[in-house]
Amino acid sequence: MKISSEHIQDVLYKLFIKYKFAKKKAKYLAKVHTESTLDGVNSHGINRVPLFIKYVKKGLVKVDAEAEKVESFGAIERWDGNFGSGIINATKCTNRAIELAKIHGMGLVALRNTNHWMRGGTYGWQAADAGCISILFTNTQPNMPPWGGKDSRLGNNPLIVSIPREKGHIVLDMAISQFAFGKIYDYKLKGEKLPFHGGWDDKNELSKDPEKILANERGLPIGYWKGSALSLILDMLVTLLAAGDSTCKIGLKEYETGVSQVFLCIYPGIFNDKSLREKLLKEIIDYTHAVEPMHPGNKTYYPGERTLQTRVRNLKEGIPVSEEVWQRVMKLLV
Amino acid sequence: MKISSEHIQDVLYKLFIKYKFAKKKAKYLAKVHTESTLDGVNSHGINRVPLFIKYVKKGLVKVDAEAEKVESFGAIERWDGNFGSGIINATKCTNRAIELAKIHGMGLVALRNTNHWMRGGTYGWQAADAGCISILFTNTQPNMPPWGGKDSRLGNNPLIVSIPREKGHIVLDMAISQFAFGKIYDYKLKGEKLPFHGGWDDKNELSKDPEKILANERGLPIGYWKGSALSLILDMLVTLLAAGDSTCKIGLKEYETGVSQVFLCIYPGIFNDKSLREKLLKEIIDYTHAVEPMHPGNKTYYPGERTLQTRVRNLKEGIPVSEEVWQRVMKLLV
Repeated sequence: MKISSEHIQDVLYKLFIKYKFAKKKAKYLAKVHTESTLDGVNSHGINRVPLFIKYVKKGLVKVDAEAEKVESFGAIERWDGNFGSGIINATKCTNRAIELAKIHGMGLVALRNTNHWMRGGTYGWQAADAGCISILFTNTQPNMPPWGGKDSRLGNNPLIVSIPREKGHIVLDMAISQFAFGKIYDYKLKGEKLPFHGGWDDKNELSKDPEKILANERGLPIGYWKGSALSLILDMLVTLLAAGDSTCKIGLKEYETGVSQVFLCIYPGIFNDKSLREKLLKEIIDYTHAVEPMHPGNKTYYPGERTLQTRVRNLKEGIPVSEEVWQRVMKLLV
Repeated sequence: MKISSEHIQDVLYKLFIKYKFAKKKAKYLAKVHTESTLDGVNSHGINRVPLFIKYVKKGLVKVDAEAEKVESFGAIERWDGNFGSGIINATKCTNRAIELAKIHGMGLVALRNTNHWMRGGTYGWQAADAGCISILFTNTQPNMPPWGGKDSRLGNNPLIVSIPREKGHIVLDMAISQFAFGKIYDYKLKGEKLPFHGGWDDKNELSKDPEKILANERGLPIGYWKGSALSLILDMLVTLLAAGDSTCKIGLKEYETGVSQVFLCIYPGIFNDKSLREKLLKEIIDYTHAVEPMHPGNKTYYPGERTLQTRVRNLKEGIPVSEEVWQRVMKLLV
């Protein structure tokens, strides 16, 4: 089914009000979940709402809590999320990193005791809208084995990098796993194999079989040993800088909560050369777009390009939402 | 053959003096090339010396040039490498980023018109020795096709992340390609296939055949489309921040020169919680080490762990160097 952006936002606002969020927060949460869905990231938009409400009901997401500054030095600050909503905490910390960047050229906020930030790209677009480059990352519960190991002890630790640009920001939003578990689940529903290895089977062999991978929850890092090392060091960085919980500690909890995140913003506006920056970005994008296709029909995109296309299309035609998901959300409302 | 660290350094010092480097620079260049070799990274240590000398002879590396500050704002500076030695420029910029980090909590130096920095890890170890976290990256000539495209238009753009630690720093030093071309060449010499896809063959299919991959110089990014996007955005970041040449521009030159780099340092010492940081790192490392092996004999390492083991072994037993490479270096000296 297709639903308008306004209708989704309206329904979600009422839902978050029902679950005791203050009006301003309910409005903002509804906006962010709707925008993620509008951009085609249903997994962290509308589809995720029932799980978010479950967390609220269990008190894992505290509706009244907000992130607070704990320590600061120059361009760096350490914040405590107090187990508030991941979206509200992450937005606040991104805003603060942007402010610091406009003062010092760059700014970093490290946040502990927060909850899942849903679509990480949200904060990449936010920073870019404010004219900032951003490098953002979070740890998660363990869901990938470290290279050479059997059990999942690494998070898929999403990494976001964004660059402001007049004709559409560049926004890379990627987990360190080759495939999201949600994506693997989609392949299972379609009865298809993955196009590349996506995790490990029961016999400890790399597998393209979604069923076998899902049974174990042992995902594959991008680039095998390389992504394994990258995921590990991202966990170290967020843990150290925030003095927060590592993937190890998060894995000891019954639910994924109390994660650690880093929000790093750079303000290129300090160099006062916007037209040069636009020219350099155009040069790189044109060069990439102009490549001959590897196979007939192949197209080459810059990160964030298709998100923008999806956004424009969904605004015009309505947002595709799973009927089953929508019924679940409506049920929560009554 | 095995050679002592002192002997390699002595020979290289004489060589760099012969090619007109000032004494201090010759000494430092000899030290860095030797240390890379000591750490087992011969490809960017002793093996790379003949190519470096070729660049010097051609005037692509200017022996007298040095990086200079062009612009600055708060914690951020833009430098011009003036086509000097990549090692000397990168060391200077890392030092400056460390200084800025100790003043502002973090510092960033963007460098343009520089040359290959040889082993990127050098500057990660340098920052960690100074008590800093570092995030460093460079662009390169094109050597990987962007996802969906046929020709190489992305660099393998090495990314370094390091974290200081008392019992041995954490240093991730990885190119965005699945395999270095040097590594693929090693497989060819051994007559072996790669264990995973490493690039594209003549028929535009992913390949494990070193010969076919080398014939095309079309490497595979880690994580397929993910590494493709990551490589692209790293190129954008260095190009914008340094106002320097992109991989597109570098690809137009006959030789890989005038690359752009970013040196970002964070000084965690501002939080004055070293024992907590050491404890948190130990927790993460112990958790990773303690994982059950995927296959009998597998071991799990943190990034930089094996480098340190190699360093200790080579210091004791001498450094393994290819006889052919050593003869080539000695010939340059006469």
